[in-house]
Amino acid sequence: MAVVSLGDLRDLAQGALTASKTSPDNAAFVADALIKADADGIPSHGVARVPAYADQALSGKVDGFAVPEITETGASALRVDAKCGFAYPAIAQGLDRAAAMAAGTGVAAAAIGNSHHAGVGGHHVESMAERGLAAMMFLNSPAAITPWGGNRSLYGINVMAFACPRPEGPPLVIDSSFSKVARGKVKLAADRGEPIPEGWATDADGNPTTDAKAAMAGFFLPMGDAKGAALMMMVEIMSAAMTGSNFSYEASSFYDAEGPPPRTGQFFLVFKPESLGGGGAVARVEELAAAVLDQPGTRLPGDRRLENREKAARDGVEIPDALFDELTARAGSGSV
Amino acid sequence: MAVVSLGDLRDLAQGALTASKTSPDNAAFVADALIKADADGIPSHGVARVPAYADQALSGKVDGFAVPEITETGASALRVDAKCGFAYPAIAQGLDRAAAMAAGTGVAAAAIGNSHHAGVGGHHVESMAERGLAAMMFLNSPAAITPWGGNRSLYGINVMAFACPRPEGPPLVIDSSFSKVARGKVKLAADRGEPIPEGWATDADGNPTTDAKAAMAGFFLPMGDAKGAALMMMVEIMSAAMTGSNFSYEASSFYDAEGPPPRTGQFFLVFKPESLGGGGAVARVEELAAAVLDQPGTRLPGDRRLENREKAARDGVEIPDALFDELTARAGSGSV
Repeated sequence: MAVVSLGDLRDLAQGALTASKTSPDNAAFVADALIKADADGIPSHGVARVPAYADQALSGKVDGFAVPEITETGASALRVDAKCGFAYPAIAQGLDRAAAMAAGTGVAAAAIGNSHHAGVGGHHVESMAERGLAAMMFLNSPAAITPWGGNRSLYGINVMAFACPRPEGPPLVIDSSFSKVARGKVKLAADRGEPIPEGWATDADGNPTTDAKAAMAGFFLPMGDAKGAALMMMVEIMSAAMTGSNFSYEASSFYDAEGPPPRTGQFFLVFKPESLGGGGAVARVEELAAAVLDQPGTRLPGDRRLENREKAARDGVEIPDALFDELTARAGSGSV
Repeated sequence: MAVVSLGDLRDLAQGALTASKTSPDNAAFVADALIKADADGIPSHGVARVPAYADQALSGKVDGFAVPEITETGASALRVDAKCGFAYPAIAQGLDRAAAMAAGTGVAAAAIGNSHHAGVGGHHVESMAERGLAAMMFLNSPAAITPWGGNRSLYGINVMAFACPRPEGPPLVIDSSFSKVARGKVKLAADRGEPIPEGWATDADGNPTTDAKAAMAGFFLPMGDAKGAALMMMVEIMSAAMTGSNFSYEASSFYDAEGPPPRTGQFFLVFKPESLGGGGAVARVEELAAAVLDQPGTRLPGDRRLENREKAARDGVEIPDALFDELTARAGSGSV
């Protein structure tokens, strides 16, 4: 493993993307997002994605030069057409506008359509909470989970994320797929030749498996069985139907450079806590957090990420040598 | 069991409530809501609640004469103070206003505070979808579930519900607690002396139990383990911190007439599908529904409720003789 500072990792990722038919601006948005995942100890959503992203930019599956188009469709509603570019610049620019709207009307919704892999959902809502707003997000991704009782994958590893400010310290961030596990974790295990725990997934015939490669070719299981599958359908509607994007079963892979753009979607709700819950809303969140921590054996959601983040800022992060070499080679391969 | 038409059941419930320190208007809102639950085959949230509601009105735990106070806190945000009255009139009036707001700005959020038992979450969002709006709801209820790793109950059987219109026929409604099971189901089993399946709950010492009475005195389990517990915390924040209401662990029981008002909360997001997802949003929901049903062995969420509802409208519903007699006696006991 190579130990790399976050700044160096960022430059490397941005360089590799800029060398691959991607504008420096867009590459900066993507690199910033990916190194946050590495810093938080979520390497499956970190710079390990750069080679696939770069290849997709080269093949045209993602438009590295896309400029997102924002349309205000109401005083509290906006739509962002990501134009089949990277998700990160579309989301960041849409959320900037949504935050300004919510400051005025109390609440805003932003629908990001024709988008791409959005990385760690929690990071997007966290950026709103850092500005004093509460936020909720729904995102979809290529299909991997069957409807309850069904036999073909239909829903993605769909994610719901939520963040709200706390009076002191970093926001509270809750980020969960309705799958028993994130696909990135299984992909990483498959790439490393490691097994996965039982209960995460089935093979292509619907039989339980601990073989990560077989799971990648099979189906993932929803958390909470039929109830989880129903919530998955809700996330699918919010992130695809309500953003004018592809359903998970229509979306192409985030991992290879083949086929048309994935055109997945992301939906955000942003609001001022005090406009709904009154002046004490954020202090009340702190009370709840204290009540949770008052019980021995508990943690707050996201605690591990924050610990990792602190360590990464101090010590840098470890990435596999092969990945480091590949990023270096790509970054050095010249500009567009 | 007594077979009663929905109209008769409504009159009986309204009569029993009006005879128990509740205004006829408020009793009408409550009775309408409860018989919908019976019609949908959810008797745990139906007129079986009337005796407890009526006793609470008599004891002052719920204010049957409360008039909800609506405050617009922004062009898209409103707060409803339920004034420790019944939830149903507060929610219905708040949603009327939210629907009008969303028609103007595209999106509205309504926070219902100082509220009470809200019954079937899905029914509230369904009422918005019947007007062409999509809606999402979060509600909390008295504590029954420990934080993950903890040993004292903190979260309620918190619910998230979602509804959106379909081009033809009734809306799609998704309604799920993050508990493995709704408390009403366990309560009904306890009242009837029936066992519950393993995996739903533990006794007061944290040991798995199939004894419904022991479960009512113990803890319920979250769906999806730690992930479900985190989402439960999100629902808790949305429904309590963001509405100025009690957290689940601060709320008194919905079942007895003792103690202060529960002061639980409900949070709603209401939006015009076409303002976010474009003109085709609702048609796309229909496409997704068709894709689910295209697989053998699948159903849409809420299908059983709709079947029950149709049958109940035609044939009436069965309610236990003892409950029928009690409602009749209460309704006949005179007015306030």
